[in-house]
Amino acid sequence: MRRTVTRLADGRELIYYDEPGAPERTAVDRRDLPSIRPASGGELRHDAIRDEWVVIAAHRADRTHLPPSEQCPLCPSTALRLTEVPDSDYDVVVFENRFPSLTPPVGRCEVICFTADHKASFASLSPIRARTVIDALADRTAELSTLPGVEQVFCFENRGEEIGVTLSHPHGQIYAYSFLTPDTRQMLAAARAYQPGSLFGERLAAERAAGVRMVSANEHWSAFVPAAARWPFEVHLYPHRAVPDLPALSDPERDAFTQVYLDVLGRLDALFDRPMPYVAAWHQAPVRQDRHLAWLHLELLGARRGPDKLKYLAGSESAMGVFINDIRPEDAARRLREARP
Amino acid sequence: MRRTVTRLADGRELIYYDEPGAPERTAVDRRDLPSIRPASGGELRHDAIRDEWVVIAAHRADRTHLPPSEQCPLCPSTALRLTEVPDSDYDVVVFENRFPSLTPPVGRCEVICFTADHKASFASLSPIRARTVIDALADRTAELSTLPGVEQVFCFENRGEEIGVTLSHPHGQIYAYSFLTPDTRQMLAAARAYQPGSLFGERLAAERAAGVRMVSANEHWSAFVPAAARWPFEVHLYPHRAVPDLPALSDPERDAFTQVYLDVLGRLDALFDRPMPYVAAWHQAPVRQDRHLAWLHLELLGARRGPDKLKYLAGSESAMGVFINDIRPEDAARRLREARP
Repeated sequence: MRRTVTRLADGRELIYYDEPGAPERTAVDRRDLPSIRPASGGELRHDAIRDEWVVIAAHRADRTHLPPSEQCPLCPSTALRLTEVPDSDYDVVVFENRFPSLTPPVGRCEVICFTADHKASFASLSPIRARTVIDALADRTAELSTLPGVEQVFCFENRGEEIGVTLSHPHGQIYAYSFLTPDTRQMLAAARAYQPGSLFGERLAAERAAGVRMVSANEHWSAFVPAAARWPFEVHLYPHRAVPDLPALSDPERDAFTQVYLDVLGRLDALFDRPMPYVAAWHQAPVRQDRHLAWLHLELLGARRGPDKLKYLAGSESAMGVFINDIRPEDAARRLREARP
Repeated sequence: MRRTVTRLADGRELIYYDEPGAPERTAVDRRDLPSIRPASGGELRHDAIRDEWVVIAAHRADRTHLPPSEQCPLCPSTALRLTEVPDSDYDVVVFENRFPSLTPPVGRCEVICFTADHKASFASLSPIRARTVIDALADRTAELSTLPGVEQVFCFENRGEEIGVTLSHPHGQIYAYSFLTPDTRQMLAAARAYQPGSLFGERLAAERAAGVRMVSANEHWSAFVPAAARWPFEVHLYPHRAVPDLPALSDPERDAFTQVYLDVLGRLDALFDRPMPYVAAWHQAPVRQDRHLAWLHLELLGARRGPDKLKYLAGSESAMGVFINDIRPEDAARRLREARP
């Protein structure tokens, strides 16, 4: 993988991650963009009653919203149209979000494009490309972890207009938070109370032993629907070895991940013969604290509960934090095992 | 208010709450419904990693989904069509949900219809009717609190197809949980740490003093956008007196609530000149523990952020619990103050 670092016209960083054989990336951003104002970022506010940080990001309200594909800002630039990516092609590219929720010192937001092909999806990537994406995410995690004030790096993909995605080009996001998120804090508290055993290792072993909720597996990774799944088609992917974050994965583990992940994504899309809207969320160890308690894993939250029905978060979920799942996890796993991509 | 208790054909309880002058409710449910099977309820599963209970309610997947208005199960019965409500009219009616998420011993789910008028909304109710709804919710809270195993009673309204509401008839819901919900647990932990002061009383006093996020108020209630609002148009309604739950409200406090609430709802609908999709969630004290720490309040979570834009919960919210709000709470409050219903 070749890494080429450049800057966009307004000073934002952009990094190409290219596979062997790709041409050099020398194009310059020729757009006339206003430089980023330092005051344009988000503001953190603490909710004392829920003991949670909320990001107030008023500048984002005007962000690009479902542009037609010929105006996609994530496609490569052409002679006629300049986009966020100056080059006429790319393999994988990462750049600072033009409409970030988090800006220094509150954090940082990056966009990662999985492919120059506007109509592709993660599920349709080649194993080599999926591996390049993972390598890029690992690289970004390592680099963002060195920034002052960053406490947690969160790599994720929102997929599907149904769940509010505003750009259809296949892409993910990387958030560097200046605080521990509530979910991570909760998970680490549970893991701390479970010592000297590993809560995550125990979960993995139990699901592999039970078998009934397994979806896919190979030598290095297992994918299962958790026994207390909150979403209709929720699949967790665990490496078999306790590693804190993506940079800690070995080469064979990275390749093995892409195999299981592409298999699971294909099954999710095959389930209703249409794209599954999902959030795919990497749970990594915090940058500094409690790294020994964590166990890297991916949570894939599939939101479609029927051909034309979505799971919504209503009163019980939004106000009380109690999820109601209409699909038994064992049934979800069986249907995913039987799905034929 | 007159209370008339009856049973539906399958054994579920139904209670009419009628205002002075309403005829007696003597109609019998003449439908041929299968009696409720005890095993048809939800199942609670504990997620050790998040330390949360999840409700698995597979039997609900077939619940009524957006029926045309002439097939609405919440309208009164007619000579030609039998619905969930046997009488030919009602003021307010409560009955056990036919497709409950929670059934004994896991909990109990009830539906509350605000009016027989299919096309109405809570915002369009008369102050007298709004008061009847509050009295009915207080009555249900008191009664459900006496059931064995019930630890928390949650009264709420989901409003709007946009957030997944499957029946458009104006109605709310009442959940009796057999455990403390994560949000309540979190709030009580914060309140406990804040003693001997009251975290909620302090919040109320601070918002009233700041003024900039106030939306509406009278002698007994204040409505404000919290400083760390998570939703685009989020309004909290607090009574000025510390009370644990709805049954503890005095008559003047109940009347004063309806005044402020109807005012706020009118402003929310006026904002974009179309119905605001929302979750309205009553936070009440638990049935048994920590009642002295609680302070009854209503959280109204408005999900529309523009005429044609909704707030969705994506990666940061769904997977990490970090909300990103595009609208500054001070701006939201100002726009609501300026809205003309």
